[in-house]
Amino acid sequence: MKEIKIGIVGLGSVGQGVLQILNENLNSIEDKTETKFRITGVCAQNKNRKRDIEISTYPWFDNPLELSLNPDIDVIIELVGGEEGIALQVVEAALKNKKHVITANKALIAKHGNQLVNLAEENNVKILFEAAVAGAIPIIKTLKESTASNNISAIYGILNGTCNYILTSMERDGVSFSNALKSAQDLGFAESDPTFDIEGYDTAHKLAILSSVAYSKEINFKDVDIQGITKIELDDIIAAKDYGFKIKLLGVSKKQNNGEVIQVVRPTLLPMDSNLAMVDMEKNAIFIRGNFFSELMLAGPGAGRLPTASSVISDLFDLANETKYPTLGISSNKLEKNIKSKSINSNRFYLRLFLPDVSGTMASITNAMARYNISIDDITQRISKKMKENNLVPITIISSLTDVNSINKAVEEINKNNYSPLSPNIIIIED
Amino acid sequence: MKEIKIGIVGLGSVGQGVLQILNENLNSIEDKTETKFRITGVCAQNKNRKRDIEISTYPWFDNPLELSLNPDIDVIIELVGGEEGIALQVVEAALKNKKHVITANKALIAKHGNQLVNLAEENNVKILFEAAVAGAIPIIKTLKESTASNNISAIYGILNGTCNYILTSMERDGVSFSNALKSAQDLGFAESDPTFDIEGYDTAHKLAILSSVAYSKEINFKDVDIQGITKIELDDIIAAKDYGFKIKLLGVSKKQNNGEVIQVVRPTLLPMDSNLAMVDMEKNAIFIRGNFFSELMLAGPGAGRLPTASSVISDLFDLANETKYPTLGISSNKLEKNIKSKSINSNRFYLRLFLPDVSGTMASITNAMARYNISIDDITQRISKKMKENNLVPITIISSLTDVNSINKAVEEINKNNYSPLSPNIIIIED
Repeated sequence: MKEIKIGIVGLGSVGQGVLQILNENLNSIEDKTETKFRITGVCAQNKNRKRDIEISTYPWFDNPLELSLNPDIDVIIELVGGEEGIALQVVEAALKNKKHVITANKALIAKHGNQLVNLAEENNVKILFEAAVAGAIPIIKTLKESTASNNISAIYGILNGTCNYILTSMERDGVSFSNALKSAQDLGFAESDPTFDIEGYDTAHKLAILSSVAYSKEINFKDVDIQGITKIELDDIIAAKDYGFKIKLLGVSKKQNNGEVIQVVRPTLLPMDSNLAMVDMEKNAIFIRGNFFSELMLAGPGAGRLPTASSVISDLFDLANETKYPTLGISSNKLEKNIKSKSINSNRFYLRLFLPDVSGTMASITNAMARYNISIDDITQRISKKMKENNLVPITIISSLTDVNSINKAVEEINKNNYSPLSPNIIIIED
Repeated sequence: MKEIKIGIVGLGSVGQGVLQILNENLNSIEDKTETKFRITGVCAQNKNRKRDIEISTYPWFDNPLELSLNPDIDVIIELVGGEEGIALQVVEAALKNKKHVITANKALIAKHGNQLVNLAEENNVKILFEAAVAGAIPIIKTLKESTASNNISAIYGILNGTCNYILTSMERDGVSFSNALKSAQDLGFAESDPTFDIEGYDTAHKLAILSSVAYSKEINFKDVDIQGITKIELDDIIAAKDYGFKIKLLGVSKKQNNGEVIQVVRPTLLPMDSNLAMVDMEKNAIFIRGNFFSELMLAGPGAGRLPTASSVISDLFDLANETKYPTLGISSNKLEKNIKSKSINSNRFYLRLFLPDVSGTMASITNAMARYNISIDDITQRISKKMKENNLVPITIISSLTDVNSINKAVEEINKNNYSPLSPNIIIIED
């Protein structure tokens, strides 16, 4: 029986999950892969930290670089996290030393993936990262292997469990963004510093990786347009619901007819009965469009110790089965440049404005919208606490199809003509 | 560049879809796989039938067996269908001649899969059948490769597009089973002889295949308990909706604590807001439970020319990438026997009875239920056409948790005490 010798760098939640799965199900894993998996080295910042998993039986390394250079290791599992520093050094060293790498580090792959994949190919080893996107959901494998004969035209992803938990809890419990965030933190669904999640960067990292595999283009994180969920208020959630929509943070990429790709992360109104809108709480889901299968959706846990570790182990299965699939679905010298598309799609938009309660306000709105050729599907004057405090009227609008520039200009003009201390909220609708 | 020489047996809808994809996207497919795909032989019942795809450029074979013995072929794609006859002969001949086989034939695999997988392994070739289950949804690959480190405890599948279309159309349009079937036939979602689909056999074939891969057990089709949708009436759909449920034909397999597996195909009441209940029309979906990832769902087109062909091509990708994954996730000599579990799960049940409109009927129902220790969550007397015609009262009941034997006995007793010419409908609830 062949043997794969494993070094693990990082023994936080996912690292311990990997050890747990390899402990609990080792027999069945070895039976299926006809491979012996042996952990020949582990390394973390603090050897003596209290952990759920006993690590004293594994050879300890103080220096992660020493571990990745160790001749008694075939694959390094990098679970440190972070886009630079130790993670990058360890991965580079391992690849240069002809060791396979498995990582759950989306920031690292989003930022350095092109160069790391190249390095792996030059050294004739693999770098695998199923666990980097959407936890247990096998979306990388699906795009790379199962739907690879298709021209993928679009990806829509709920890729961040923290944001989805917050938005669901605002909707279900009628709580404010900050209260929902706090309860997410209390329950362990949000970090103590949640910036990366709630500002959309984490979603953007994952989207950039998926877009590369889907469209056979280089990973291009820097051109993702990113907007988080911090501006979403309970009143938006309520108004959206009233119109038949839910608000989700989506990562969306679309391939335009000219071959260029749009990548955006933004809160989005989705029809209440659409498949993605049903994906609530900390769950993730990815919806893909291809020319031969039309629509495919995968949903499941997007984070967590064991779901993520389960995907790490699936990469070990791939190593054991010696699959030759290129990391990004095509060898990196054939990846196309990923040029940011300048073209602008048509969408409907949801607007929420706070305007002075004086005569002529409605006329000034409809005039401004007309000036930019935007029809109005619905306009509703609402009630909210803020109204009383500021003597302002909250007004929500659903526009007909238009582009983001027109809607921004129309709102700018409305604001110019009606002084308001509260800024408007403009949210895209995906029908 | 290496080359894979392909023989296609069967040029119906899916066969033509395979040719279409290989025509339309050949460059990108060859770029990704670094493999030339060449069709070195095609064969079908009728050479001159009118087809959407031009086949005159491919070498024609009158005899499918001759094609599968041809030395100029590496892989036979069998798309004839049927569990015996030509399909079986061609596949066996190909494997014995050390040619890989790709097939979309669920009946063949459900019935002869164990022996064919064995034969493939003996001859050191692959038999692949991603397209046999759930069209474009990569569920075989997911179970075999992505979730393989888990102990899978249950699979719930909407695996037959025809049945799902019929049930959705009954619910949405308020039409009878036979009218819904007719419109499904008119739209091409049902065969002219729909028996295989509506009686649940097709779902059972697919379930037996999935269960094998999920639990590392031999394929055991003969022990699947099968019940189709022909007894579902519009009144059941309406009553279910009223209780907050949708009726779906589910293939369900569960691994019991003793390791035995229950496999059943049956109409099932699902909570309206559950993820599976949302999967409507001709779409398929599979929901799996594993010990490390908890829940995962895949949804998409379960049939159709191009979705199915897309999965056939994904098997070609696997051949090109020389993955060593065993066909059923574990080499066939390690598959466990698949013994039919005798244990019985607890569920809630939906009952619809037609009983004489006389005093004492309700008491006789509640007494019978009490005798078998079944609590009643809801009992409702309803109105229906049949009532007027027969002077019978339709009564629907939601039971509390019980087992199928108790519920059957209780209903038997109710019927004995209340003569009714109309038989009751008993449908399981999966909460």
